[in-house]
Amino acid sequence: MDYEKLSSKTAGKPILCKAAVSREPGEPLVIEEIMVAPPSPYEVRIRIICTSLCHSDIIFWKLKVPPACFPRILGHEAVGVVESVGENVDEVAEGDVVIPTFMSDCGECADCRSEKSNLCSKFPFRVHPWMPRYDASRFTDLKGEALYHFLFVSSFSEYTVVDITHVVKIDPAIPPNRACLFGCCVSTGVGAACKTANVEAGSTVAIFGLGSIGLAVAKGARLCGAKRIIGVDINPEKFEIGKKFGVTEFINSKDCGNKSLSQVIIEMTGGGADYCFECVGLGSLVQEAYASSRKGWGKTIVMGVDKPGAQLNFSSFDVLHSGKVLTGSLFGGIKAKSDLPVLIKRYLDKELQLDEFVTHEVKFEDINKAFELLIEGKCIRCVIWMDK
Amino acid sequence: MDYEKLSSKTAGKPILCKAAVSREPGEPLVIEEIMVAPPSPYEVRIRIICTSLCHSDIIFWKLKVPPACFPRILGHEAVGVVESVGENVDEVAEGDVVIPTFMSDCGECADCRSEKSNLCSKFPFRVHPWMPRYDASRFTDLKGEALYHFLFVSSFSEYTVVDITHVVKIDPAIPPNRACLFGCCVSTGVGAACKTANVEAGSTVAIFGLGSIGLAVAKGARLCGAKRIIGVDINPEKFEIGKKFGVTEFINSKDCGNKSLSQVIIEMTGGGADYCFECVGLGSLVQEAYASSRKGWGKTIVMGVDKPGAQLNFSSFDVLHSGKVLTGSLFGGIKAKSDLPVLIKRYLDKELQLDEFVTHEVKFEDINKAFELLIEGKCIRCVIWMDK
Ligand SMILES: [Zn+2]
Ligand SMILES: [Zn+2]
Ligand SMILES: [Zn+2]
Ligand SMILES: [Zn+2]
Repeated sequence: MDYEKLSSKTAGKPILCKAAVSREPGEPLVIEEIMVAPPSPYEVRIRIICTSLCHSDIIFWKLKVPPACFPRILGHEAVGVVESVGENVDEVAEGDVVIPTFMSDCGECADCRSEKSNLCSKFPFRVHPWMPRYDASRFTDLKGEALYHFLFVSSFSEYTVVDITHVVKIDPAIPPNRACLFGCCVSTGVGAACKTANVEAGSTVAIFGLGSIGLAVAKGARLCGAKRIIGVDINPEKFEIGKKFGVTEFINSKDCGNKSLSQVIIEMTGGGADYCFECVGLGSLVQEAYASSRKGWGKTIVMGVDKPGAQLNFSSFDVLHSGKVLTGSLFGGIKAKSDLPVLIKRYLDKELQLDEFVTHEVKFEDINKAFELLIEGKCIRCVIWMDK
Repeated sequence: MDYEKLSSKTAGKPILCKAAVSREPGEPLVIEEIMVAPPSPYEVRIRIICTSLCHSDIIFWKLKVPPACFPRILGHEAVGVVESVGENVDEVAEGDVVIPTFMSDCGECADCRSEKSNLCSKFPFRVHPWMPRYDASRFTDLKGEALYHFLFVSSFSEYTVVDITHVVKIDPAIPPNRACLFGCCVSTGVGAACKTANVEAGSTVAIFGLGSIGLAVAKGARLCGAKRIIGVDINPEKFEIGKKFGVTEFINSKDCGNKSLSQVIIEMTGGGADYCFECVGLGSLVQEAYASSRKGWGKTIVMGVDKPGAQLNFSSFDVLHSGKVLTGSLFGGIKAKSDLPVLIKRYLDKELQLDEFVTHEVKFEDINKAFELLIEGKCIRCVIWMDK
């Protein structure tokens, strides 16, 4: 069994377990014993089965200035089993297989009650060092020092505590090393295509940046029946990789000669792509994406995280006269509790293949190897198994 | 009869008639006799019944630099009767009541065939001094000098020639002094609310600028069942006027104290308006509109024409994290041949009232009075009757 049942011997008590602690910016994580407090009201303690490494973990591991903080337990793409629950938690119970999500779905606020938003306004998305509800940590090291949380998940630990609004019960039929991907990358990319953009069958999609998110957008666009999926990257090796995810054509943005990238795309598509996804986080590339989108109906979806304070500039004339749409997508517009199980069903129904994402798998003790692989660009997703 | 039938004695021959010619920037129009050539293939000659004056006419009347040009026949909000048609025109015939539209609907290009676009790519919107298809004028003065066209309509003339792709046959049941409004103002504003934004019943709308377009947006929002319609203007008299168009609340943007306009709107609405329409053409106001729109799903629709080269700036973080949508709307997203007759039916069915728009009516010989009234801000729409 991938997801074994636990006895509830530990419920209500602190758990001594191993975690990979990020103690200094850019320094290897330290696997050490920590104490994980029992869940407070509205909280769930989860035994992590496996977790995968995302670029955002690396960004906050390297970052030397706030909102970075140390020592911290990173990790936000994971799957686990409920070990115990705090007061007022009825939604999940010991033994349930769950994905902790960095986006809340409280079910009560105007956003969570609306079909149109996935941005919970009761517990808004933020890079916060504590639990969302109590501004406190559930982790302490053996010296008694509190360890910071990351994105309300902190999955680089055998056990973590997550607010119930950040927990989704899932079908245990999905293998853990596929389930964890829904915690960030797959939901973000597939959701952006299928939910935020709502890509129409037969349409043309351009993806700017074929990192893991861009590749997940390609998967989503393919799932929606896009006919042409144009991948743009500066690394020519990305075309062969991209093909496995549904990319049908490739542009090396360094090889556009005397044309701009948008000119090349407009020529290739006879007017522009129906949907453009910016997955890098560069203002200039957002503008190229917008320029590459089809006049009349083209949608540009901003997904890349730019530098703090970065601005996007558009010609007022273009915005008024082009009929184009600009928007952004966080977690793919996916509502954690309602949309995520539907997306997982599409995986289980074999509509959505995810095998290509997992290029590497390591034991927990080798977590620093996962960092190296992702930094070297040698992997898409490296799954870290807690118990193997 | 408002729309009397014509005999076809004039077909195939030039017509000598009166036009109001704009000979010098900002100088009163000169009513003079001109020759109107017979329609070339794919063209329609129309006897104008009445025309109303729009701010864009005034802008191009005042403008001293290109794309302004003189002598020109302005006017683009009109209704008339087909006098004769050129070769290859089957869609309309002598005696049909028609609206000439500044937006083409060729029915053949990818845009005209798509439900998603109203931006004909065969004859794109532009401020062009000629016919769209032949780059020639159909107007000459009595000295034999060609007179420039305006927006493919040039309705300040007893007769005009318009390309068939810019002509919509309408139900003659609609009175001319209501029909003409669909040539620009009403279609633009009502369409922006009902088609581009697709305002949901029960929602909250904010309109920045209560000129004629903003008031038409209010009409459209009301038609869609918006619950709250917040009008923003610097002229406090606009609230009483706005009420007649459906505005339910008013903000004088000069009276926000130490708060920004968007702060005031966010507080009034408990989070922001569902739809924000910028109808002034100021970059800073577009940004306030975007900031005033509801996180999670707020849509901002740019409608105002800013200075050439003007830029819009947005924080990359906001675009990514807010789930907001930015778009623009030209002619309200209305497809001239398919959507306009539907909108007219809503007028005939008394769902859409237009009486409030027409504050003044003048004879053709008093056309310069219409300019004065609009410039002084004393009128919403002044209808100019050609034959009264
Ligand atoms: Zn919520
Ligand atoms: Zn991530
Ligand atoms: Zn067309
Ligand atoms: Zn107009």
